[in-house]
Amino acid sequence: MTRRETREVHLARRPDGMPVADDFRMVTTSLASPAAGQILVRNILMSVDPYMRVRMAKLPSYPHWELDQVMDGSAIGVVERSEHPDLPVGTVVSHRLGWREHALLDARDAAAVPHTDGIPLAAHLGVLGMAGFTAYVGLTRIGALAPGDALYVSGAAGAVGSAVGQIARILGAGHVVGSAGTPAKVAFLVDDLGFDGAFDYHVESLSDRVATATPEGIDVYFDNVGGTHLQAALDSMNHHGRIVVCGAIGEYNALREQPGPNNLIYVLTKRLRMEGFTIREHMADHPAFVARATTWLRDGRLRSADTVVPGLDSAVDAFRDLLAGRNIGKMLVRLSPDPAPR
Amino acid sequence: MTRRETREVHLARRPDGMPVADDFRMVTTSLASPAAGQILVRNILMSVDPYMRVRMAKLPSYPHWELDQVMDGSAIGVVERSEHPDLPVGTVVSHRLGWREHALLDARDAAAVPHTDGIPLAAHLGVLGMAGFTAYVGLTRIGALAPGDALYVSGAAGAVGSAVGQIARILGAGHVVGSAGTPAKVAFLVDDLGFDGAFDYHVESLSDRVATATPEGIDVYFDNVGGTHLQAALDSMNHHGRIVVCGAIGEYNALREQPGPNNLIYVLTKRLRMEGFTIREHMADHPAFVARATTWLRDGRLRSADTVVPGLDSAVDAFRDLLAGRNIGKMLVRLSPDPAPR
Repeated sequence: MTRRETREVHLARRPDGMPVADDFRMVTTSLASPAAGQILVRNILMSVDPYMRVRMAKLPSYPHWELDQVMDGSAIGVVERSEHPDLPVGTVVSHRLGWREHALLDARDAAAVPHTDGIPLAAHLGVLGMAGFTAYVGLTRIGALAPGDALYVSGAAGAVGSAVGQIARILGAGHVVGSAGTPAKVAFLVDDLGFDGAFDYHVESLSDRVATATPEGIDVYFDNVGGTHLQAALDSMNHHGRIVVCGAIGEYNALREQPGPNNLIYVLTKRLRMEGFTIREHMADHPAFVARATTWLRDGRLRSADTVVPGLDSAVDAFRDLLAGRNIGKMLVRLSPDPAPR
Repeated sequence: MTRRETREVHLARRPDGMPVADDFRMVTTSLASPAAGQILVRNILMSVDPYMRVRMAKLPSYPHWELDQVMDGSAIGVVERSEHPDLPVGTVVSHRLGWREHALLDARDAAAVPHTDGIPLAAHLGVLGMAGFTAYVGLTRIGALAPGDALYVSGAAGAVGSAVGQIARILGAGHVVGSAGTPAKVAFLVDDLGFDGAFDYHVESLSDRVATATPEGIDVYFDNVGGTHLQAALDSMNHHGRIVVCGAIGEYNALREQPGPNNLIYVLTKRLRMEGFTIREHMADHPAFVARATTWLRDGRLRSADTVVPGLDSAVDAFRDLLAGRNIGKMLVRLSPDPAPR
């Protein structure tokens, strides 16, 4: 068979602050036909995520992307050519080779995605994918959320944050509050997702605003932002509160240059626990989560939310918009249309 | 019986920065004879501890001392008058009514201290008391120290720190390193307490110095100091490391005014857990600890270390010296001589 012409996005240089177009390069390439055990996938949707900003840097403590190589990330596609019997042509699969229009990979590195049940494919990259799973693991394994706990989440209108608030409610949280960066997001949290409270963090005193919004204090703070957001939450933490350190999107463009919270003394005086995690170390729980969350989605207790941008040429802008907080829910790039459900 | 003339130290005003003499007041008072169930104790030794600086402030999240009242803290004394059969005259007891020469209290608020076994009474306020117990709980319950773990402790020559390094070794730590503020303390840690490494933290780059001293990285950081010491340790933490937040003596004189570590991003990228605790919530484990630690003391595997200052008139200076790091091991004030062992 002929080779498959396609395009992919490479990291051209390591960004300094907010990434710009010249940090990336669109590369046209061609893929061989699948060898035995391989599949060639036409990507349908790819994910852009805050953690990718960390991978663009070269930190000793975190995996990084090499220069002049294609980046990767979660994606969903349809099998276009197959040399593996379990994933025939037409199968919808999820895999890790995003930032490209087509991907050639071993079938064992892909997983079939159900596409018959009325759940949009985008949900498999969002609330059923790593974003929702991250919310679930953070709340249960790291935050040890207990029924009745007061939950506060920053970056609440993002992919993870919007799942955090909803899943916390399903798991029995007593009071669910989120912060976000625009009035539209705040309305979305309360009106569409059923948060008990939400507010715009563009205020003079974030600490005072958090305190007002969390009259019962905070038992679990799910931190997607870091920096001043962490500092404000520390002021309102209840004794024995847990801080789930999931992201620090506010710091990703200025790694190691941000002053830390000036009230970290509360970790001591309030006996707090603060813990970071990465979802890749918890994958054993993923199938059980997908089963539970699929039920919640069908019941209407959990909603999928996303912002979808068309075309690989828009991927860098989508990523910049994500870092600038212009998305509501999961930020996705559509690379080709959904196939018909089967 | 006649009343007992005695003296006690009151908090006269809340200190601003390092406490000064005028923040305290020596008050002469008289105590009634014990009522039924009470004892009157002549204090022998009292403890001054870093946490007391926090109680002198009025934080919403931490118990504070009232003005014009006697402060309190761990003490050991001998029963001078008794109206309780379990604690007759001459019994050595530990209790919580320090900062005074005599104390009148319910017998149920005191505990008999063995004084026949060759262990100095001072050890019961140090390595067998709250200091050693804090080290033990921090290492086991909070830090989850595992055999072979690399342990680093700041403030290592203090009451808690000197116990941390020794107990970590007994519990199987692979590499035990501490930092302290004088060459004499550094020598004490290595020569007397058997630390694998120790260094003076007065260096240009504390981060570089910690990195050099911990070639295997840090699995458990026992933080007695906070501030720049926490920041330096964060740089050298291994993945999945635990930070035991026990104290922040470097911040107690400037509560809420210190910038936090600028590398808190490592909590996320290295999947660290940072947790604060106070020993009062773990008292159920205390008897078991005393039994174990008494054996370690008798075996010579655990050493008691203290700095003892004479007289209640020296208590404020002892406390100031403690905050300035002038002690080695537990800082104690002697209020009267030890009775003869019985």
